[in-house]
Amino acid sequence: MPHDVHELTERTRAFVDEHVLPADDEHDGDVEAAGGDDLRRRLQALAREAGLLSPHAPTDLGGLGLGMVDRAPVFEAAGRSLFGPMALNINAPDEGNIHLLAHVASSDQRERYLRPLVAGEHRSAFAMTEPAPGAGSDPGRLTTRAVRTDGGWLVDGHKTFITGADGAGFLIVMARTSGEVGDNDGATMFLVPSDRDGVHLVRHVGTVDRSMIGGHCELALTRVFVPDEDVLGGVDEGFRYAQVRLGPARMTHVMRWTGAAARAHEEAVRYAAARPAFGSTLAEQGMAQQLIADNEIDLAATRALLMDACRALDAGSRASAETSIAKTFAAEALDRVADRAQQLCGGSGVSRDLPVAKIARELRPFRIYDGPSEVHRWSIARRAVRRLGTS
Amino acid sequence: MPHDVHELTERTRAFVDEHVLPADDEHDGDVEAAGGDDLRRRLQALAREAGLLSPHAPTDLGGLGLGMVDRAPVFEAAGRSLFGPMALNINAPDEGNIHLLAHVASSDQRERYLRPLVAGEHRSAFAMTEPAPGAGSDPGRLTTRAVRTDGGWLVDGHKTFITGADGAGFLIVMARTSGEVGDNDGATMFLVPSDRDGVHLVRHVGTVDRSMIGGHCELALTRVFVPDEDVLGGVDEGFRYAQVRLGPARMTHVMRWTGAAARAHEEAVRYAAARPAFGSTLAEQGMAQQLIADNEIDLAATRALLMDACRALDAGSRASAETSIAKTFAAEALDRVADRAQQLCGGSGVSRDLPVAKIARELRPFRIYDGPSEVHRWSIARRAVRRLGTS
Amino acid sequence: MPHDVHELTERTRAFVDEHVLPADDEHDGDVEAAGGDDLRRRLQALAREAGLLSPHAPTDLGGLGLGMVDRAPVFEAAGRSLFGPMALNINAPDEGNIHLLAHVASSDQRERYLRPLVAGEHRSAFAMTEPAPGAGSDPGRLTTRAVRTDGGWLVDGHKTFITGADGAGFLIVMARTSGEVGDNDGATMFLVPSDRDGVHLVRHVGTVDRSMIGGHCELALTRVFVPDEDVLGGVDEGFRYAQVRLGPARMTHVMRWTGAAARAHEEAVRYAAARPAFGSTLAEQGMAQQLIADNEIDLAATRALLMDACRALDAGSRASAETSIAKTFAAEALDRVADRAQQLCGGSGVSRDLPVAKIARELRPFRIYDGPSEVHRWSIARRAVRRLGTS
Amino acid sequence: MPHDVHELTERTRAFVDEHVLPADDEHDGDVEAAGGDDLRRRLQALAREAGLLSPHAPTDLGGLGLGMVDRAPVFEAAGRSLFGPMALNINAPDEGNIHLLAHVASSDQRERYLRPLVAGEHRSAFAMTEPAPGAGSDPGRLTTRAVRTDGGWLVDGHKTFITGADGAGFLIVMARTSGEVGDNDGATMFLVPSDRDGVHLVRHVGTVDRSMIGGHCELALTRVFVPDEDVLGGVDEGFRYAQVRLGPARMTHVMRWTGAAARAHEEAVRYAAARPAFGSTLAEQGMAQQLIADNEIDLAATRALLMDACRALDAGSRASAETSIAKTFAAEALDRVADRAQQLCGGSGVSRDLPVAKIARELRPFRIYDGPSEVHRWSIARRAVRRLGTS
Repeated sequence: MPHDVHELTERTRAFVDEHVLPADDEHDGDVEAAGGDDLRRRLQALAREAGLLSPHAPTDLGGLGLGMVDRAPVFEAAGRSLFGPMALNINAPDEGNIHLLAHVASSDQRERYLRPLVAGEHRSAFAMTEPAPGAGSDPGRLTTRAVRTDGGWLVDGHKTFITGADGAGFLIVMARTSGEVGDNDGATMFLVPSDRDGVHLVRHVGTVDRSMIGGHCELALTRVFVPDEDVLGGVDEGFRYAQVRLGPARMTHVMRWTGAAARAHEEAVRYAAARPAFGSTLAEQGMAQQLIADNEIDLAATRALLMDACRALDAGSRASAETSIAKTFAAEALDRVADRAQQLCGGSGVSRDLPVAKIARELRPFRIYDGPSEVHRWSIARRAVRRLGTS
Repeated sequence: MPHDVHELTERTRAFVDEHVLPADDEHDGDVEAAGGDDLRRRLQALAREAGLLSPHAPTDLGGLGLGMVDRAPVFEAAGRSLFGPMALNINAPDEGNIHLLAHVASSDQRERYLRPLVAGEHRSAFAMTEPAPGAGSDPGRLTTRAVRTDGGWLVDGHKTFITGADGAGFLIVMARTSGEVGDNDGATMFLVPSDRDGVHLVRHVGTVDRSMIGGHCELALTRVFVPDEDVLGGVDEGFRYAQVRLGPARMTHVMRWTGAAARAHEEAVRYAAARPAFGSTLAEQGMAQQLIADNEIDLAATRALLMDACRALDAGSRASAETSIAKTFAAEALDRVADRAQQLCGGSGVSRDLPVAKIARELRPFRIYDGPSEVHRWSIARRAVRRLGTS
Repeated sequence: MPHDVHELTERTRAFVDEHVLPADDEHDGDVEAAGGDDLRRRLQALAREAGLLSPHAPTDLGGLGLGMVDRAPVFEAAGRSLFGPMALNINAPDEGNIHLLAHVASSDQRERYLRPLVAGEHRSAFAMTEPAPGAGSDPGRLTTRAVRTDGGWLVDGHKTFITGADGAGFLIVMARTSGEVGDNDGATMFLVPSDRDGVHLVRHVGTVDRSMIGGHCELALTRVFVPDEDVLGGVDEGFRYAQVRLGPARMTHVMRWTGAAARAHEEAVRYAAARPAFGSTLAEQGMAQQLIADNEIDLAATRALLMDACRALDAGSRASAETSIAKTFAAEALDRVADRAQQLCGGSGVSRDLPVAKIARELRPFRIYDGPSEVHRWSIARRAVRRLGTS
Repeated sequence: MPHDVHELTERTRAFVDEHVLPADDEHDGDVEAAGGDDLRRRLQALAREAGLLSPHAPTDLGGLGLGMVDRAPVFEAAGRSLFGPMALNINAPDEGNIHLLAHVASSDQRERYLRPLVAGEHRSAFAMTEPAPGAGSDPGRLTTRAVRTDGGWLVDGHKTFITGADGAGFLIVMARTSGEVGDNDGATMFLVPSDRDGVHLVRHVGTVDRSMIGGHCELALTRVFVPDEDVLGGVDEGFRYAQVRLGPARMTHVMRWTGAAARAHEEAVRYAAARPAFGSTLAEQGMAQQLIADNEIDLAATRALLMDACRALDAGSRASAETSIAKTFAAEALDRVADRAQQLCGGSGVSRDLPVAKIARELRPFRIYDGPSEVHRWSIARRAVRRLGTS
């Protein structure tokens, strides 16, 4: 780790410990997930002051311009609190949207959408997933349609699991502009202010995780007008842009969740080291040592796979294979880490006395979000067969 | 399964489907866990009418007098709803307390405490566990003390994780009447109405599970007077009675949780059978079939180990080895079942759209409650070494 | 366990300890697997003398007539030595063939084939499996054909993984007498003395396991004549008879392998109890206790599932679901048991110093033989979907 | 990977495919493990000719001077054949001994012992491990003693699991020169020609793995004279030197075994891609895809952890934590890879028809050799507690 990244990581960690963790517990389970935008604005103001806001954003927009490798330790340090990524403006989906817009937005869009997003003035959402049998693990099932109208497009469709949609300033909506359902091209991305006519928040899906500001929402889009200047990039180029966003977004998820799981592990080790047991401490018992060691191993392997993928991304590769493997391993390994942390802490591991149970609850869906492990395994296996099967 | 148990099981299942499951979802996450006593009274009245209330209680008190083997399918059918055991009055800790009182209570105690408990007129709690380093995995660490006073005893101590304590009619309090902390004898059980002076509910521990009526509570006992007629059984016999309660209580937990996990599995199989995927259904995909098959195997093995232990208990054995193995396996296997069910259901498996996520949340603590898996493994291993190690 | 089965089990165990285990080590790795027929005849003579030969065979043929439930502990006791089942004449495939012939053979066949088989005068093989893409996990792929000729049939085909074929007195050959490859009927069973013209032993497959007398062989059948009196049961009834054989044969495999795994576990526990470590013994270390406890749990669950299936078989059910679940669980659990036993024994667990490594090596293929776990899971899942998927 | 390492890796792979793999199968199970020194000399001559011999050795001795990071892909390519490391002279223990001698040997020892070792003129062994309760997982239990005599030392002791001892040109013997059994210092390394009086090969331990030339041997050392010029490095510095050898030796084991496991995986993928199943190929079945994907993930995580540790070693760190985690993960992950490969190949996976079963057999002991996983977990946990437990 270069010196300045190390220093930035340390400062991030200290900032999270001092300012963010205290807000973490008190807001758990709020009706308005993750404390709401008031808390977000308060924490982001502190992060701005500390020079920590939007470290991944382009420097000309006020970010620190960190590449993927350099993001990893910083994002992990932020992820130790469930609200840390929100405080630093590196939360999903904003973080991925910043990445996407930085690559694709026109200079005008850059000013209207990206700059205020980097500054924390509004939030965003990425509206791709649809209720079954629409776009999901297979994006080509995209059914939302945009048709030409005077000076722009009219979008109709139904979206679900749209993270952060409630309260977002704008949505990036993926809609089909050509081809048929099942085609792997013909999609376009549209920038849509959330208060535009025809955008309707149907409901919060009501997931077990509750730390994402704006929740995971179901949206109905009814004849939503999008002027030509709000088409993001080229018409029919949406699937290609989604790939640009995909790999890095997978990996920053891993970074953040590694931080959360590492914190659960730390809490559990501290608990075990302090807890008397059988004339010594719990941490001296063999079965507890096994839980602790397995957590260390899972965290180390997660980070090692993550860094491999980040190096590939920084080198300009799409790194689909590397990010798919790293995501799949990480989602399962971090879930195990949190589960073992719970087990180590006994009753305190399944109650509010420690943050461990909460972290476990938040982590579980990561084995499903961003592609269920089974879908990743399917594509990993197919790659292996293509590479090895005919030699 | 004998015919009448089969029929009773079917009726229980139908009753739960018709009357209990509808209440299940709507009360999740209530401040007052498990819907509260109003709901309990309403459901128990329906169960009484259906002839299903307290099937394990002695027949002279209005129960059906089911042994352990016969309880298994009935309790499992009830457990399919998180509120089913409450509706049938076979919930922990009442179920175990009924079992205990039927064996130990005087005829006077039988009328004052047991009969109304069987009838659902009040609830009870079993106050043994204490905050560390008190009684827990090692009951001999019991620190709550009872000292002689005129006509009875004065009890002082601190209890935690006391299930159902909030709103219970009475507590069975385990207190040390002789010996020192660390001794494996010298404990006595006391029957204590919850409104007795000196009984103070400190807090709900705030566990992740929320389906136990009366929650899991921390209690302070300060100079609580217990008259001699409310000593349960003999003085200094408490640890022996706790053993009477222990094995069956472990197994009825397994029965109920098997029902919950089986329901999660059923929901997941139905979901997978209905969900289109890759030109067929999700249930036709190999990785989904593996999840389904592993659930079938885990459920079958859980039931097989459970029935082995129940046969041993019905034959009069204490069955410590069998119940320890069955509990440890079941707690882990049922947790896996619920986790796989979540994975099968994708986004719906981590949201309120299906009951699967809720069941998974409720099941997790069972690997810690009633003895963490690690403590059970420790005793299982020691038994194996005694049996095999020197031959 | 009824008294006499308990006593028979104890006698079997003592017999194996005294007479069979000494032969076990010295013959490992012989070119002629499992010591050969000289050793077999010597051990079977001792077993006959001890009244232990062929305990599962019909009483009128000199067996003890044990049902499935009663076989379980006896076969497990025999299985503690890799040669124990051979010594008692309850080895695969003879044991299953005795079971099959007792159900299907004509009285003449009974005298010519079954009686000497029960008496240990010759061995047998069951020739169903064929090289891919022939009969295997899918028996309907049967390609070996029998066509009518004067006074009998001419059989042509290719078989592989035919256990015990080298040195067998006769084969039970499954051949297609009607229908096409892929049909699930149209097969007939033929009794074929091994020295019949046209029966050719191509090779020993060379599997990692080496304790099955007669090995696992590949056979070529070229215009093998079978007279009508050697058709086993009815023409075109072969698949139905194979089902008769299947369930019990699966379960007796489990019985025998449970014995082998239990012995590995016992050896490991004894090793750990005697081995000094960290001021105590290895068996007192937490991670070792976890290995020991997990073995106890896996063995208990294997036996519990096995007994469930045996009760169903004794009650007259085909028990396809129960035997499939029990076989799948057992094959994986017993493999884990042997692996943990190896780990507990350190260097001695991967050398000839203890029988543990040898048992692990013999057990591994059981996850593939008699249907790979994946094929069983496929059928288990399909049953679950049929049962639950549409309700 | 820098270009020349990539090219060297490709050449190594081609060399192994052409020259070494053909010898691999035919020598399996030889009494003289690994084909013996005639085969070694033949293969090493070919490697010398190809410029591939001893790539890790110092350039002034004719090696290529590869650091740890650069060794990884080359050693993995060699490890694809069980005899590949022998052919390239990068087998344990010679490889580690070359590393050790290059750091510690005097210039005279360098000429007499190291140069011919690099050239493949003789082999070596590292004699540290002793029968229990001597030096093993706890090196401080060292009981072999060296006492001063005229012009040198007399060594007495008992060693076991000494890899390659049979036929080795010389041994590096670890003996206690001061302190008591249990002390973590006071050891010295001695260079001992194998034909020196008093060196006695007691037996081959008879492990399940059979690909290490010279086997794993038990040695008796009786008044073995070592002249002063054959003391390796300083007196009483042996434990420190052992640490120098330890980390790199752990990692080169991982490199070689990764190659073996990767080959088993490749064979299995090819088998699955070619095998018809259910109207498609086995490789298209979901459960097979899961096995394939899990292998890809385990291999990727193994390599990622390995490279992390190698970077740390190349940077001059002792990297005890990194190498311990990487070794523990790798030993278990590679064992899983080989096991899944076996399962994918069905009957061919447990026979000699494919090299998969053989590779699985060779890999199993790696979870025990070089520190059993349990001992590594113990030290990993203790490190975690020291780092986290008191903060």
